Amino acid sequence: MPRYALTLAYDGSGLPGWQTQPSGQAVQDRLERALAAVAGHPVATICAGRTDAGVHALRQVVHFDSDARRPDSAWVRGVNAHLPAAIAVRTVTRVSDDFHARYGASRRRYRYLLYSSPVRHPLLAGRSGWTFRELDDARMREAAALLAGEHDFSAFRSSECQAASPVRRLEPIAIRRHGPLLLFDFAGNAFLHHMIRNLMGSLLMIGDGRRPVAWLAEVLASRDRRRAAPTFEPHGLYLDGALYEPRFGVPSWSDDGGVPALLAALS
Amino acid sequence: MPRYALTLAYDGSGLPGWQTQPSGQAVQDRLERALAAVAGHPVATICAGRTDAGVHALRQVVHFDSDARRPDSAWVRGVNAHLPAAIAVRTVTRVSDDFHARYGASRRRYRYLLYSSPVRHPLLAGRSGWTFRELDDARMREAAALLAGEHDFSAFRSSECQAASPVRRLEPIAIRRHGPLLLFDFAGNAFLHHMIRNLMGSLLMIGDGRRPVAWLAEVLASRDRRRAAPTFEPHGLYLDGALYEPRFGVPSWSDDGGVPALLAALS
Repeated sequence: MPRYALTLAYDGSGLPGWQTQPSGQAVQDRLERALAAVAGHPVATICAGRTDAGVHALRQVVHFDSDARRPDSAWVRGVNAHLPAAIAVRTVTRVSDDFHARYGASRRRYRYLLYSSPVRHPLLAGRSGWTFRELDDARMREAAALLAGEHDFSAFRSSECQAASPVRRLEPIAIRRHGPLLLFDFAGNAFLHHMIRNLMGSLLMIGDGRRPVAWLAEVLASRDRRRAAPTFEPHGLYLDGALYEPRFGVPSWSDDGGVPALLAALS
Repeated sequence: MPRYALTLAYDGSGLPGWQTQPSGQAVQDRLERALAAVAGHPVATICAGRTDAGVHALRQVVHFDSDARRPDSAWVRGVNAHLPAAIAVRTVTRVSDDFHARYGASRRRYRYLLYSSPVRHPLLAGRSGWTFRELDDARMREAAALLAGEHDFSAFRSSECQAASPVRRLEPIAIRRHGPLLLFDFAGNAFLHHMIRNLMGSLLMIGDGRRPVAWLAEVLASRDRRRAAPTFEPHGLYLDGALYEPRFGVPSWSDDGGVPALLAALS
């Protein structure tokens, strides 16, 4: 059966996450219903990265199979007509049947948007993490540098994580500041459950002075989840895309999208 | 009684607008209840610009009187504890009693955030206007230049507008593009009801080629509301601030220098 790859964006703030659940309200449930309505048959989907409740996607990658002959516009605008405002297909690509959204992704990128200000901002509610504490960017960059490379990330792994191995390869974390807003870029081969939110919690404890920089290396080496900071809030986390072999022609991470949009309005 | 000026931000997407209404759900109603809870007496507020349902504020300016002695933090974080996530006080300034949020504002600025893309974006839903049509920025800039200066804006005025005069002084409209996003800056002494949304509707009809540039001058000269485009959607409109005599010390609009740099860094 012909295989298709979609890129999908969603505002996760009112959604229970990617993975199908009995309520039928998960992103996967809603997408599969919308695809079935267009295809005229049940559709099963597989995604690049399962996002938790409250986490957004700028470019989730999803594949599915269908022998329904439809123009590209049906898989994009047609499916979108069956989706709520919080979810939209952005692109569709016809791919060969050895494409796999999950196993074929060699790199994934997430972004964390953080608002550092004494007062909360209504236009960032649900769209960013927030800390009322002042942050020292240099300390966070120094700590973040300790994380680059291949490590056993057990200390930053949720107890519910089902991955076979806790070893992941993390690329250098870019941290950029624009006034009270900070953008953290996390890229790597794959991520453990809650890994980025756990890393964010720990980086913030260093940035605001509650922990020394060297503490992060100790926590990492300990492989002990109890030593790291609590899981930080989901609302600043954006799945930004996944990378596949170029022959598939699937758009990788974004060159536009919701985060810049939001910031434009706020600057 | 001592007078205070607040700056207030809100996400208008789920709110019925500024002005008090029987439901008690308007921004003014919610703010006055929160202020009363902190002040310990009923509080009446006056704002710089009454925003409609769906319209946001980055920096609405509001004044009120109270003889309750409270630290600044009570008027900001204390009041915010009584406000929903969609509304927050950002700053408070003690002002002399000749300060007036509405009559004392010599300039006001609004921004309109527009998303121009064949496909809608979930992370911009409720936060921007959207057109699926392609836009020619040069045509819109040429048309916008016709609007600068003092004019009778009757053609762009809601039938419900209660202003005594339809004459307003509009500063040159800046239009900046960042990929699929466009940011329109509107500044002037004051604005008629629906004026910016009506201007946006007409600029878009020129930008997408449905009307010639010269049509805008004709519509303006006609003073006839029926000749202009329909009122464009509220969700891209942001009240960005108001300007007062410097002696009051009230924060005016935000410095917009950072927007292009910010977007360049993010994309």
